[in-house]
Amino acid sequence: MEVYAGVDVGGTNIVCGLVTPSGDVVHQIKRATEASKGPDSVLEKIASMIEEAAAGYAAHSGEETSVIAAGIGLPGFVDPEEGIARFAGNLGWRNLPAVERLESRLNLPVYIDNDVRTYVYGEAMYGAGKGYKDVLGITVGTGIASAMVNSGKLFYGFRNMSGELGHIVMEGLTDPCPCGLQGCLETFASASGMVRHTKKALRNGEASILSEWYPGERLEELTAADLSRAYDQGDSFARSIMNKAGTLLGRALSYAVPLVSPELIIVGGGGALAGDRLLTPLKQELYSRILPDYRERLNVVTALNNDDAGVTGSAMYAKQKHENAML
Amino acid sequence: MEVYAGVDVGGTNIVCGLVTPSGDVVHQIKRATEASKGPDSVLEKIASMIEEAAAGYAAHSGEETSVIAAGIGLPGFVDPEEGIARFAGNLGWRNLPAVERLESRLNLPVYIDNDVRTYVYGEAMYGAGKGYKDVLGITVGTGIASAMVNSGKLFYGFRNMSGELGHIVMEGLTDPCPCGLQGCLETFASASGMVRHTKKALRNGEASILSEWYPGERLEELTAADLSRAYDQGDSFARSIMNKAGTLLGRALSYAVPLVSPELIIVGGGGALAGDRLLTPLKQELYSRILPDYRERLNVVTALNNDDAGVTGSAMYAKQKHENAML
Repeated sequence: MEVYAGVDVGGTNIVCGLVTPSGDVVHQIKRATEASKGPDSVLEKIASMIEEAAAGYAAHSGEETSVIAAGIGLPGFVDPEEGIARFAGNLGWRNLPAVERLESRLNLPVYIDNDVRTYVYGEAMYGAGKGYKDVLGITVGTGIASAMVNSGKLFYGFRNMSGELGHIVMEGLTDPCPCGLQGCLETFASASGMVRHTKKALRNGEASILSEWYPGERLEELTAADLSRAYDQGDSFARSIMNKAGTLLGRALSYAVPLVSPELIIVGGGGALAGDRLLTPLKQELYSRILPDYRERLNVVTALNNDDAGVTGSAMYAKQKHENAML
Repeated sequence: MEVYAGVDVGGTNIVCGLVTPSGDVVHQIKRATEASKGPDSVLEKIASMIEEAAAGYAAHSGEETSVIAAGIGLPGFVDPEEGIARFAGNLGWRNLPAVERLESRLNLPVYIDNDVRTYVYGEAMYGAGKGYKDVLGITVGTGIASAMVNSGKLFYGFRNMSGELGHIVMEGLTDPCPCGLQGCLETFASASGMVRHTKKALRNGEASILSEWYPGERLEELTAADLSRAYDQGDSFARSIMNKAGTLLGRALSYAVPLVSPELIIVGGGGALAGDRLLTPLKQELYSRILPDYRERLNVVTALNNDDAGVTGSAMYAKQKHENAML
């Protein structure tokens, strides 16, 4: 059986999957990244996970399994043409020639790209965006990022630096952002932004069921999932935080829509788990601020294969690149 | 000599030029559009202008002149693939099969697109953007619009509806826009927006040299060029209007840059004539709101061939389309 390997490399875990040419994940394994052991260790782990997945699936299915090419989604700035991971803060990588190293180790064609691009590519082509031509995807997690797929092609921009939607400076936000700016969208509307604002308000005596769940020092344990739980119990503070985050996301997207005219917006990452708690205020703000011609035709949905899109996207990205290279 | 015809169709005038394959305009004629005579009359005028330009240049140069293909930039929503002018308010056109009509009349390959796209294509490829890979162009005139060229390809988006930068709703603006929204960027930062706000303030007794130039009823004659004149004489009201418009443009562009990462922003249209009067506050606002990685590498300039870019762009757009069709 011929498959593509898709690898999603995060600061915490690496997920490696085998994907059929039609985009189905048939086998998947997950390991801790252990980035502190250095780039060589992480690259070797990626390579051995691809081999292990292929051997594991062959043993399990009883079918000979041939990996045609591997696609790797990496965090940070990636140069897919040169095959170099330019900068990944949470891995501690800088100008790492990842493709050269992995190809000589694996004896396979290897393609790399930014993990948000490969994720959005997976969702756009094989997930919620299947059948749509112009897709804008955003991921809401620790940070906020975006990517576009138009007629099956990822958009890059100068130095592959498109997609930093989280660093749009929003009126009314004033928190400093680690990037050096003040009031970036992700300082409030990301999962970590919402949690930080929640903790700050609770420390200042804001009334919320969350203070009962996490009294005193235990407040540090609060996560974005707790906000959704409190929201569902009717907690008005949790609702105000999620409404504000959704509204800010909708407003930022209202700046994007006239510029690039997407047919579909996919909200993915951890934020997708919040579902309509974020999407309802997001859509309300977005639709109130865009031309009727957009409003009538634009859909906004959460990711369909949120867990697998990174793997599927990386593998199918490698398939597209590999097929183009064979032409 | 082989040339391409480039035609820029506006609500007031039609400009038709002959352009060499390397992008030089060798002959140009201009006629009133007379849109009120109807689409058939305007299409016939376009066709006869192309023939007239070819004959005129042949007589003038003594060289046989062969038009290989014609490109037409049309206002409003255009479907370049179907060759149909979907909607052009200022021409009164709706779903006009312009390409079919012109091709059968001229016996030439004809290509159409939105006029802002053909203009930005001309500037990106043969004007201020020559040598740049990722260009975002905006036109500041009666309205504000945008277009992108990436690696020599125009960006379209769903239903070719990208590029409505003028209809981003800006915080702090409240004027109703004819589009149905309130506070669109172009309600203030376009040439006509600046003029409208100027007239309103002067009627309310604002102190400005403009009141001396245009006393009483004559205020209606005031144009955007007068604002530049008053600015140059140190008029603080004119400066405040242009500073605010430039700042708003810079802010809107700060929403676009993280999303699409242009290498160069070109400001064209009538607004380009204001030069640094708009560009200085624009850049100040823009650069203060984008990531250092963008700030260090992004240039903002006015259009180089502001008058000719529409004609050059339409002709060279036709050349690109025609050469692709021949592959």
